[in-house]
Amino acid sequence: MQRTYISETKAGETQKIQGFIDKIRDQKTMQFIVVRDTTGKIQVTVVKSEQPEIAEIFTGLNVNSVVTIEGKVVENPAVKAGGKEILPTSVVVESAAEVSPIDDSTAIDMRLDYRWIDLRDEKKSLIFKIQTCCAKALRNFLLERKFVEIHTPKIIAAASESGADVFELKYFDRKAYLAQSPQFYKQMAMAAGLERIFECAPVFRAEQSYTSRHATEFTGFDIEFSYIDSFEDVMKLEEELLTYMLKCVKEEYGEVIAKEFGKEVIVPTTPFPRMKLKDVYQELEDRYDYIVDDIEKGDLTTEAEKLVYRLAQEKYNSEFMFVTDYDAKQRAFYHMRKDGVPQGYDLIWRGVEITTGAQREHRYEILKEQAEEKGLKKDVEFYLEFFKYGCPPHGGFGIGLDRITMLLLDIPTIKEAMFIFRGPNRLLP
Amino acid sequence: MQRTYISETKAGETQKIQGFIDKIRDQKTMQFIVVRDTTGKIQVTVVKSEQPEIAEIFTGLNVNSVVTIEGKVVENPAVKAGGKEILPTSVVVESAAEVSPIDDSTAIDMRLDYRWIDLRDEKKSLIFKIQTCCAKALRNFLLERKFVEIHTPKIIAAASESGADVFELKYFDRKAYLAQSPQFYKQMAMAAGLERIFECAPVFRAEQSYTSRHATEFTGFDIEFSYIDSFEDVMKLEEELLTYMLKCVKEEYGEVIAKEFGKEVIVPTTPFPRMKLKDVYQELEDRYDYIVDDIEKGDLTTEAEKLVYRLAQEKYNSEFMFVTDYDAKQRAFYHMRKDGVPQGYDLIWRGVEITTGAQREHRYEILKEQAEEKGLKKDVEFYLEFFKYGCPPHGGFGIGLDRITMLLLDIPTIKEAMFIFRGPNRLLP
Repeated sequence: MQRTYISETKAGETQKIQGFIDKIRDQKTMQFIVVRDTTGKIQVTVVKSEQPEIAEIFTGLNVNSVVTIEGKVVENPAVKAGGKEILPTSVVVESAAEVSPIDDSTAIDMRLDYRWIDLRDEKKSLIFKIQTCCAKALRNFLLERKFVEIHTPKIIAAASESGADVFELKYFDRKAYLAQSPQFYKQMAMAAGLERIFECAPVFRAEQSYTSRHATEFTGFDIEFSYIDSFEDVMKLEEELLTYMLKCVKEEYGEVIAKEFGKEVIVPTTPFPRMKLKDVYQELEDRYDYIVDDIEKGDLTTEAEKLVYRLAQEKYNSEFMFVTDYDAKQRAFYHMRKDGVPQGYDLIWRGVEITTGAQREHRYEILKEQAEEKGLKKDVEFYLEFFKYGCPPHGGFGIGLDRITMLLLDIPTIKEAMFIFRGPNRLLP
Repeated sequence: MQRTYISETKAGETQKIQGFIDKIRDQKTMQFIVVRDTTGKIQVTVVKSEQPEIAEIFTGLNVNSVVTIEGKVVENPAVKAGGKEILPTSVVVESAAEVSPIDDSTAIDMRLDYRWIDLRDEKKSLIFKIQTCCAKALRNFLLERKFVEIHTPKIIAAASESGADVFELKYFDRKAYLAQSPQFYKQMAMAAGLERIFECAPVFRAEQSYTSRHATEFTGFDIEFSYIDSFEDVMKLEEELLTYMLKCVKEEYGEVIAKEFGKEVIVPTTPFPRMKLKDVYQELEDRYDYIVDDIEKGDLTTEAEKLVYRLAQEKYNSEFMFVTDYDAKQRAFYHMRKDGVPQGYDLIWRGVEITTGAQREHRYEILKEQAEEKGLKKDVEFYLEFFKYGCPPHGGFGIGLDRITMLLLDIPTIKEAMFIFRGPNRLLP
């Protein structure tokens, strides 16, 4: 018999369902078992005197065991969830579970130890269905606009952007490193004339960070494209891309997100507001008495990021804000500068930076100078070569897929927005 | 002025094009420059006496420089490619190129040193457009069937499947390893109840292999799904998936693949032929006098893989063949066995193994025994835990995206089917 998804079972039919046992109520004369698959839950009802063999199977089973059940689906208004139940004629135990070491009250670190049990919670598995929807929307938007998907190497010869925060690797008889971002390689694709590319892949950061939004490995969604006039083109593409993504997510999951996560999916209007960093600090001071030392004003503090959310909402009725005109000292050497000002931005959504984007410096001599100014030499030599033999003007940005999932669903920590979290103290499972 | 793609330029209009200089013919009174973008090429024609400033710009430029050109597009039947040319009114040099260190006659290793120049060849960039189409088709097929996309960690605590061929990493004050495949984690997703998942991500193999089809890092497309009855379900999904992919590729790129790569895209019919390993060897002996020692008959030799292609075509009129019933000694410990026979297969396409698939052993005690039989203990302890608390029966397979690109387009080496190749001697660029 073909399996029927639980959400698709129909009263009056004899059907086969498969799933995890969610609950067992073993009473004197009756058993009520709840079985769960990826689509929903159903009650299995056993009259012990009528089906002693089946009753015996359930008596010996723990919650979390996996079963295949055939039986008649019948309506029963007394059943709270769904109003129907299945009366089993055959039960096969596919996998008998030991007693689970975790439950709803278990602290997060131990829940992560048993992540595969933790994820059986409907709401938690929903996170990854929604993340799938996000990634699908991002890709579809780009594919419709002639972007090519590339896969850049994660094992690299030089410690890339800064030398710090990079994992070192034994590569046969040499040292190698794990890529902190596909930055150099997506720019290489521009020098190769691919014009418009994206990549969705892991990025690695050897940071000893223990915040709620940092991980040593996460999924980056990176975009780069050629023949832009300025970083305004980059912001434009990103705001359109994110608006499209949120529209798709709202259509497919808007209601369920509101119900399960208590969060409204707001499809923004474009253009997103744009403010220069110094104007942001001025407004934060004027409006909220938020004052920082001049020395911190070249970058956005974590506290200021949060206030930017408030400012974006109050001043522009937007959840988003592009902040531009950072101090060159705070920005990567490969950002193009105009009169000393980096031609890039951070995008703040719901109080957190979700993107850094920029027009890149594509002129070899200037790029080399900017690298040297940051003390970079040997490590970027191979990269500088990309710009010697012709390279179009270009720009791009990167989005952390886990981070936007976290913000979209108001999940308090990135540990729960990722399938498996990696941090300085977490390598298992 | 908005940029116009070269393939979309229209005679009679004043337009702006942007691209690399492909050729410069600098004659006494005239200049003929060919400019190339991602959509095609166009001739730029300069009458020196009429436009001395523009002529001077081109005189000083090398091929590969990047330019922005505005001018009038006019018909000219004398122009071989496209029958039109552009008469420039303004030329901006975006990037002046040095003389390229490589050309068409350069050997592959040096071409890989300058991969970004190498890839400017139209045919080479086409490879990645076609690969994009493949990945898009694979994803769309799976997304339509409720598969969830996951992103599993690449940094892992234990040396996974065998301990050999794994890259070792410094992870803060510990050792860690790079995942050879997402195998353990995609099975974890089954234990987590996600039921149907896929992942497209890098995999890492510390193999000292120098064949035309091995790389130390490549892109794997991995699939796993629950509630299968046998590995027949796995083969069925894979043959449908690949048929769909080839159908999409043929529709979008069939003609251009025939023209540029001289290869027909053949959309297969399902089911693909299936043969047991021992029957394969018997047929190879009967038909082609191919004889191997009994000791080699537990696995398919490289030579036999090639002959299987011939056999599949001659016997079944198919480019594909599933080979089943391998020797358990040759297969991973996590393949389910029935009467000692691994419940899995290799899929051979055009003489090369492109997939290993199987039903997995999901029963903790049996799985533990099979691991121990292969001498695996400590390294798989964390993985065995996944099966203690309930796990559905499941199976899956993995496809090397670069390898199918290579076979699809008849590219002689995987080095050219990947954006950037990584091998034991190749870490740059």
